[in-house]
Amino acid sequence: MQQTFKLVIDCPDQVGLVAAVSQFLAEHDATIVEASHHTDLQLGHFFMRHEINADSLALTKASFIDAFEPIAQQFSMNWHLTASAEKPKMAILASHESHCLIDLLHRWHTGELNCEIPCIIANHAHMEKFAEWYQVPFHFVDFKALGKNAAFKKVSELLAHYDADLTVLARFMQILPDWLCDELAGKAINIHHSFLPSFAGAKPYQQAYERGVKLIGATCHYVTQDLDEGPIIEQQVIRISHSDSAADMVRKGKDCEKTALANGVRYHLEDRVIIHQNKTVVFA
Amino acid sequence: MQQTFKLVIDCPDQVGLVAAVSQFLAEHDATIVEASHHTDLQLGHFFMRHEINADSLALTKASFIDAFEPIAQQFSMNWHLTASAEKPKMAILASHESHCLIDLLHRWHTGELNCEIPCIIANHAHMEKFAEWYQVPFHFVDFKALGKNAAFKKVSELLAHYDADLTVLARFMQILPDWLCDELAGKAINIHHSFLPSFAGAKPYQQAYERGVKLIGATCHYVTQDLDEGPIIEQQVIRISHSDSAADMVRKGKDCEKTALANGVRYHLEDRVIIHQNKTVVFA
Amino acid sequence: MQQTFKLVIDCPDQVGLVAAVSQFLAEHDATIVEASHHTDLQLGHFFMRHEINADSLALTKASFIDAFEPIAQQFSMNWHLTASAEKPKMAILASHESHCLIDLLHRWHTGELNCEIPCIIANHAHMEKFAEWYQVPFHFVDFKALGKNAAFKKVSELLAHYDADLTVLARFMQILPDWLCDELAGKAINIHHSFLPSFAGAKPYQQAYERGVKLIGATCHYVTQDLDEGPIIEQQVIRISHSDSAADMVRKGKDCEKTALANGVRYHLEDRVIIHQNKTVVFA
Amino acid sequence: MQQTFKLVIDCPDQVGLVAAVSQFLAEHDATIVEASHHTDLQLGHFFMRHEINADSLALTKASFIDAFEPIAQQFSMNWHLTASAEKPKMAILASHESHCLIDLLHRWHTGELNCEIPCIIANHAHMEKFAEWYQVPFHFVDFKALGKNAAFKKVSELLAHYDADLTVLARFMQILPDWLCDELAGKAINIHHSFLPSFAGAKPYQQAYERGVKLIGATCHYVTQDLDEGPIIEQQVIRISHSDSAADMVRKGKDCEKTALANGVRYHLEDRVIIHQNKTVVFA
Repeated sequence: MQQTFKLVIDCPDQVGLVAAVSQFLAEHDATIVEASHHTDLQLGHFFMRHEINADSLALTKASFIDAFEPIAQQFSMNWHLTASAEKPKMAILASHESHCLIDLLHRWHTGELNCEIPCIIANHAHMEKFAEWYQVPFHFVDFKALGKNAAFKKVSELLAHYDADLTVLARFMQILPDWLCDELAGKAINIHHSFLPSFAGAKPYQQAYERGVKLIGATCHYVTQDLDEGPIIEQQVIRISHSDSAADMVRKGKDCEKTALANGVRYHLEDRVIIHQNKTVVFA
Repeated sequence: MQQTFKLVIDCPDQVGLVAAVSQFLAEHDATIVEASHHTDLQLGHFFMRHEINADSLALTKASFIDAFEPIAQQFSMNWHLTASAEKPKMAILASHESHCLIDLLHRWHTGELNCEIPCIIANHAHMEKFAEWYQVPFHFVDFKALGKNAAFKKVSELLAHYDADLTVLARFMQILPDWLCDELAGKAINIHHSFLPSFAGAKPYQQAYERGVKLIGATCHYVTQDLDEGPIIEQQVIRISHSDSAADMVRKGKDCEKTALANGVRYHLEDRVIIHQNKTVVFA
Repeated sequence: MQQTFKLVIDCPDQVGLVAAVSQFLAEHDATIVEASHHTDLQLGHFFMRHEINADSLALTKASFIDAFEPIAQQFSMNWHLTASAEKPKMAILASHESHCLIDLLHRWHTGELNCEIPCIIANHAHMEKFAEWYQVPFHFVDFKALGKNAAFKKVSELLAHYDADLTVLARFMQILPDWLCDELAGKAINIHHSFLPSFAGAKPYQQAYERGVKLIGATCHYVTQDLDEGPIIEQQVIRISHSDSAADMVRKGKDCEKTALANGVRYHLEDRVIIHQNKTVVFA
Repeated sequence: MQQTFKLVIDCPDQVGLVAAVSQFLAEHDATIVEASHHTDLQLGHFFMRHEINADSLALTKASFIDAFEPIAQQFSMNWHLTASAEKPKMAILASHESHCLIDLLHRWHTGELNCEIPCIIANHAHMEKFAEWYQVPFHFVDFKALGKNAAFKKVSELLAHYDADLTVLARFMQILPDWLCDELAGKAINIHHSFLPSFAGAKPYQQAYERGVKLIGATCHYVTQDLDEGPIIEQQVIRISHSDSAADMVRKGKDCEKTALANGVRYHLEDRVIIHQNKTVVFA
């Protein structure tokens, strides 16, 4: 598989910045696999992502960073460079419902998600044997026995131990404390089982049933202190009717949840997402 | 075109009620074009709609009603019978944006909507000539000159004058007063330009833009005193991205609005909708 | 979980037949959970499905069948009665790609699919350990070593041995011989990775890529001798663009395949599908 | 409204070409409103579109073209520059069904489509008065009286007379002769009422009904000599079921047709489409 570098930039919009970046890339013989630009005209802010054939470059990652830094400073860029050869470590938090966990494991195992999965952390023990087939370490954290505070301290220690770059809440049913939300800022992705901002909080399918909506959905978003209020990465919906009970909605909604979460996670892992002021630019 | 009767029933669920209805229909030689049943198991409530070939029946509408009444009483039914030959009168309220108005007129004119359109009432005058092509009376009610109270009194008088069976708010941008909502209860359909319950009230596309959602939508619902809280008939959504400005959302949303409203109105006109406790059963 | 009977009927349309069936059900105190009717006006053919609370009935399955037979004969019905307590046996045929297999196993294991899975038969061996977690017997049939004829004979013997009521081809990449298609007529479901009738046969995503379509899809259908020509149960599509390579289409298409197959299989297992003249009525 | 230039380029992929173009734009102070890139890795071909704030540029259109030509030659570019101030002239061909015609007129009239409509040419006369409201010249060409050859000669003369840049077949039900297809190559857009390549040719909804598909659609494509085989710009689908007659499909399909055609036409008018080897790149 071809290795690539991803160069992701956002900065105040300014004439000459694309020229400067592309001039830099051309000088170093970069073959561009994919290039995406977006100008937010209202904010006067610019977003850019390049996927570059690593073999075409006369630079290592380190030398690229050194050489590019002056341009970045000139244009006041937020920026980072990642190498596809360095796979990010994605930890998964799970509860009793396993559909999102199983879906992520399968996509990772078949190469759809370019990452390592260093561990699964769950407040239910029943998927331990399943994780073994994938040879992923499984940690059961007993929230009931430990209490919520100690349990989340344990979760945080495990994430640190495994050096997780990304934490995915795969229908994890415990609300993260504020200190952990802060610790994981921009590095934790949740799936909420409603079409946000409709039906935030508990029992969204029951809420949807009671309101009598004709479509239900799921929302993949970054975790922030404000529950279900973080930047949205991806949403999916499915049609329902009067003949669907709340239980039918749960079943149908699972397909939305799996797809929305898998897409959102993939976009993040491929450096396609830029968070800006509680919204996202997604170069899908 | 084949004429039909629609027999629409809801009542507490009970063994024998389908047998009683279908026995009645068979005795009168009814050929059934379409039959739909729904049992709300949670509420123990039953919903049923029959579309019957009118020519197959040995009954007039009046004699059908008389003959069926004992069964209806036995099972405590809410029910009504309509004849496709008697077209309901659908008045349209419109404002400056004309996409929903034009869409409804076209569908009506080409036979998609089985109704008469006795009048268009608008708080802008610019579509008067357009309405002429369709030979539909157009009334400009000058809300600014008359003031809101007098203007809505005028609207109500016009609806009474034209004997409207249904009033459709085709992106009508004035909020109906409570007394008019009550007057039109179950007989007025609105299109709201968001995926309710998200973004109720004013400027939904701007709200959607600010929240950074990845799908926008439109909701067709019955008008009630509680703004944007009435029973939902139909919803449509469309995908958007970071590259869509609020103006792009307005453009994309219009297609959702037209389709959701047209579907909702058609379901109502074909007696496919039963309102029950702020929700709808829609035999689409 | 509540047990139900499903009574599924199709027959020439005739006045009085719904009355006869509902009269029969009422006489035996049947509480109806769900009832669906369809009249094909062009063919003059009638389709009906009842889901009945088994506890409400004063009849066993056997006595129901005996008692109903005279009505069935009177109206020349094709009909059958199934009891949810008797779970059908669903065998799965798989190849190297495992996404559909894994999806079906998960849905079955979490109760979404009301069936037993007596065996998995595959022409690749790599999922054997995975199947163990679900405690489902796994048979590797070595098509290369045995040759196609002997291999399919082996498959047929295994299906007979396990007494399979339904055989699901979960992206099984061997074309069934005619004699096996006949053996499994109406009892084998395939997923084809295109939006049929577009791109039947081999390499549909490559075909789609070459034609430059803007949506791709998947089709769940009954297996017949004519490749990809059997009655369609369910289809799903997903949007693509010029930026999707054939490999991207493969990835995106998998989500369509899983959903279309899972839906189609569930409809079949819940007796929601009636095959009539190479088309299906699906009471979804 | 802000005026823009659109610079649209395709050429063999090569290191340095983005740098050259963006360098050129920066040198002339171009503020970029929207930029899109695509590399077809399989073909080694590159596609690029820039939308540039016209006021930011120190160049007129003519001087831009002169100044850019050397770069274009250096990289063997196919390219063109358009100015939003110069609206393309879009002629519409129509038949009896008017939904696409009415939809396009409304979108044009409300500013969604940046073009002039110099004329409508139809082989039915009934929309003449309607066109008057929009003040668009309407030409009835009597195919029956004139015969097909003479009629198409007349159509071609009218298109020449009105100097049409684009010809839209808005459900125009006459098959264009080869010579006219050639005349209009890359400048004529058709809407076909099926999800191509399924159901090309006559009566696609009847074909769909007979095959028993579960989704129907519409395809917007450039006209070529090979009927329904031209480069696809946009497709839309809608779910159907066994309960939809061919007439229901016609009704539902119209919504797909209108949306697919309107999108495709808008993409073309905004110079978002590049045709390459019977496929399109659409920078939507």
